[in-house]
Amino acid sequence: MKEQAEIGGTTDGGLHRLALSDADKTVRDWFREQMANADLDVRIDTMGNMFGRRSGTDPQAPPVLVGSHLDSQPNGGIYDGPLGVITALELIRTLNDREIETAHPIEIVNWTNEEGSRFQPAMQASGVWAGAHDLETEYAKSDADGISFEEELNRIGYNGDTPAAPQEAYEAYLELHIEQGPTLENVDADVGVVTGVVGFTWGELSFHGAADHSGPTPMDHRNDALVAAADVITQIRRIPGTLGDRTVGTVGHVDVSPNSVNIIPGDVTITWGFRDPSDEVVQEAYDRVLEEADWAASREGVELDYTETMRAPSVKFADRCIKAVQSAADELEYESHQLLSGAGHDATHLDSVCDTGMVFAVSENGKSHSPAEYTSWDDCYRAANTLGNAAYKLATS
Amino acid sequence: MKEQAEIGGTTDGGLHRLALSDADKTVRDWFREQMANADLDVRIDTMGNMFGRRSGTDPQAPPVLVGSHLDSQPNGGIYDGPLGVITALELIRTLNDREIETAHPIEIVNWTNEEGSRFQPAMQASGVWAGAHDLETEYAKSDADGISFEEELNRIGYNGDTPAAPQEAYEAYLELHIEQGPTLENVDADVGVVTGVVGFTWGELSFHGAADHSGPTPMDHRNDALVAAADVITQIRRIPGTLGDRTVGTVGHVDVSPNSVNIIPGDVTITWGFRDPSDEVVQEAYDRVLEEADWAASREGVELDYTETMRAPSVKFADRCIKAVQSAADELEYESHQLLSGAGHDATHLDSVCDTGMVFAVSENGKSHSPAEYTSWDDCYRAANTLGNAAYKLATS
Ligand SMILES: NC(=O)NCCC(=O)O
Ligand SMILES: NC(=O)NCCC(=O)O
Repeated sequence: MKEQAEIGGTTDGGLHRLALSDADKTVRDWFREQMANADLDVRIDTMGNMFGRRSGTDPQAPPVLVGSHLDSQPNGGIYDGPLGVITALELIRTLNDREIETAHPIEIVNWTNEEGSRFQPAMQASGVWAGAHDLETEYAKSDADGISFEEELNRIGYNGDTPAAPQEAYEAYLELHIEQGPTLENVDADVGVVTGVVGFTWGELSFHGAADHSGPTPMDHRNDALVAAADVITQIRRIPGTLGDRTVGTVGHVDVSPNSVNIIPGDVTITWGFRDPSDEVVQEAYDRVLEEADWAASREGVELDYTETMRAPSVKFADRCIKAVQSAADELEYESHQLLSGAGHDATHLDSVCDTGMVFAVSENGKSHSPAEYTSWDDCYRAANTLGNAAYKLATS
Repeated sequence: MKEQAEIGGTTDGGLHRLALSDADKTVRDWFREQMANADLDVRIDTMGNMFGRRSGTDPQAPPVLVGSHLDSQPNGGIYDGPLGVITALELIRTLNDREIETAHPIEIVNWTNEEGSRFQPAMQASGVWAGAHDLETEYAKSDADGISFEEELNRIGYNGDTPAAPQEAYEAYLELHIEQGPTLENVDADVGVVTGVVGFTWGELSFHGAADHSGPTPMDHRNDALVAAADVITQIRRIPGTLGDRTVGTVGHVDVSPNSVNIIPGDVTITWGFRDPSDEVVQEAYDRVLEEADWAASREGVELDYTETMRAPSVKFADRCIKAVQSAADELEYESHQLLSGAGHDATHLDSVCDTGMVFAVSENGKSHSPAEYTSWDDCYRAANTLGNAAYKLATS
């Protein structure tokens, strides 16, 4: 854990390892070497997803897949993603050390660009692999500097030979991740048994007014793109309170042009993000934000464009995976708690390919996407133990 | 006009010539050459202000100073500033061509960093020259990349020998500028006679919350710096309507960190700018914005810092300069209109040194600080003619 966390590590103990960056290349090289050292059969697919396979004893048995992602948010934390990849590797090392065989092969995986901050959407490469997105469309996506996903994938040498799609049937997919919310800590649980993932909508609203001088331009002679955007930001704070207990709404990104103290902003882009366990509520939030944006734009006399950049339906995991995780936790005598994930995960897409489940580790103070993200060593251990036993169950059943 | 407007010119017909940039150096070199060609005695001061002097016939008569600035806003227009410098140069050329002598010397001037977008405050070097700011403090100011004013002034070779302060008494200062507002066009005037400049306050509000994941973090578990900032942006839109007819309030600049679609913003900085003819109203706007910011910060549970980056009292120009401009316009049979400037100008500071006046050229649609800024050739000519005749009056009286 420590060795890899230094790759892209920040001075404040966080991690800045954006998808397909130099740091991502370095951690991939490290991970490939670890997989080879653990005698895994390594392959890379055309989206840069990295797989390592340990054979099973039954030639007919489909593999159990276990993993997560090694990329991070800008200035994010060290647990979000890497903990799930490292614990998958630990499972393999433990089976190797103890010379334990399983009927099903076990594959571990590092999915490319789970975070969706450099290239959108989040869970991009697992989405292509699962057939939710088209490869060429995702290749063409570009970052804020206009550099394409495909260029960067080639540059870092991780455009592999295997097609980015399941090459065979899978028995199940398991993923360990930190909770990233406060629930497990609030109920004093040792480990979380995840029952599914909330649905979400992400998008961009662009307001186009007229840049003008902030001094001699009377208030009634303005087309201020920022005032319209600010109005919508305050509405996005309020909309969740009118929908459901679990609804959240956030503006994470703002881009103002020309962004000078004495110029009325001419163009402003903001993002929206809404999540809820119910797909209907997500749709309602989507309708509401566009309505608010229309109102705000017409009040300020500015033009409005919008695009939805991501829509993920809510997911309910397979009962047998939930059960495998629950009984692993019970057998280890951990206090466990069943909960829905408020964050998106590669497991969302995997659920459409095979039976899927997740284990959550406790997040101190619910913090993540920040260097303040923290999971104690004991909590990491309990979650890893639960994951390992659940995967073993599925691989031997 | 055309030749210099190409230095830092943008493809959309605008001007991007930030103070002390390479483009600023190039236009200064050009201006120095033009002044030398017009037989002016050139000197540069320690703030980079550039003066060119044409002798008078009376050795006792103090000089009349005429000028403006050659720097621009980011992606600004080609008239704001340069028109005043070029018409001052035209005045000299006309006097030379016609071999007209004046009792008072006439000096023309290009003031450094009038715009205040790269280094704050606006009207920076005329402020030092007039004694409103301290040289060392302004030298230490840095741009968004952390590069200091002094470094850049030295780098472009415009840290001159003359101290940045009046070296003698001045008879008067005249400045021609575009109006940058819609008044002259609305009253169908050919030229504006400026009676003074509104007062203003500029500042920065920084909100410090906690960056966190936008998904699993419940709405009541957030410290969202952007929601607080957005609240204040909408208040800054409203405050002017509760104060005076001429009050304006603007947020031109926003900086969000980490600025990622799925991270709750941890830190947000916005600027404020309020202007009004009455210094009391400016003070009231200042008090109100801090009050609103306190409320918004406490609602969202975030910390607040603020600094005022500029406060300029309103200025009422000397009657004899207003009269000189007014009678020049009358003698030329132009339709003129007296008005207060809603934009700050170097004339604001000059007013504390000597009798000061300004001529405004009509701004089409009131637009400025944008490539859409436009003044017709005829309106440029009328304003230049008014300036030249007013300056001649003051220089021969
Ligand atoms: N788990 C996680 O942080 N995923 C990134 C996508 C999201 O914002 O949910
Ligand atoms: N005239 C002008 O645009 N000055 C810049 C300072 C201001 O914003 O008023």
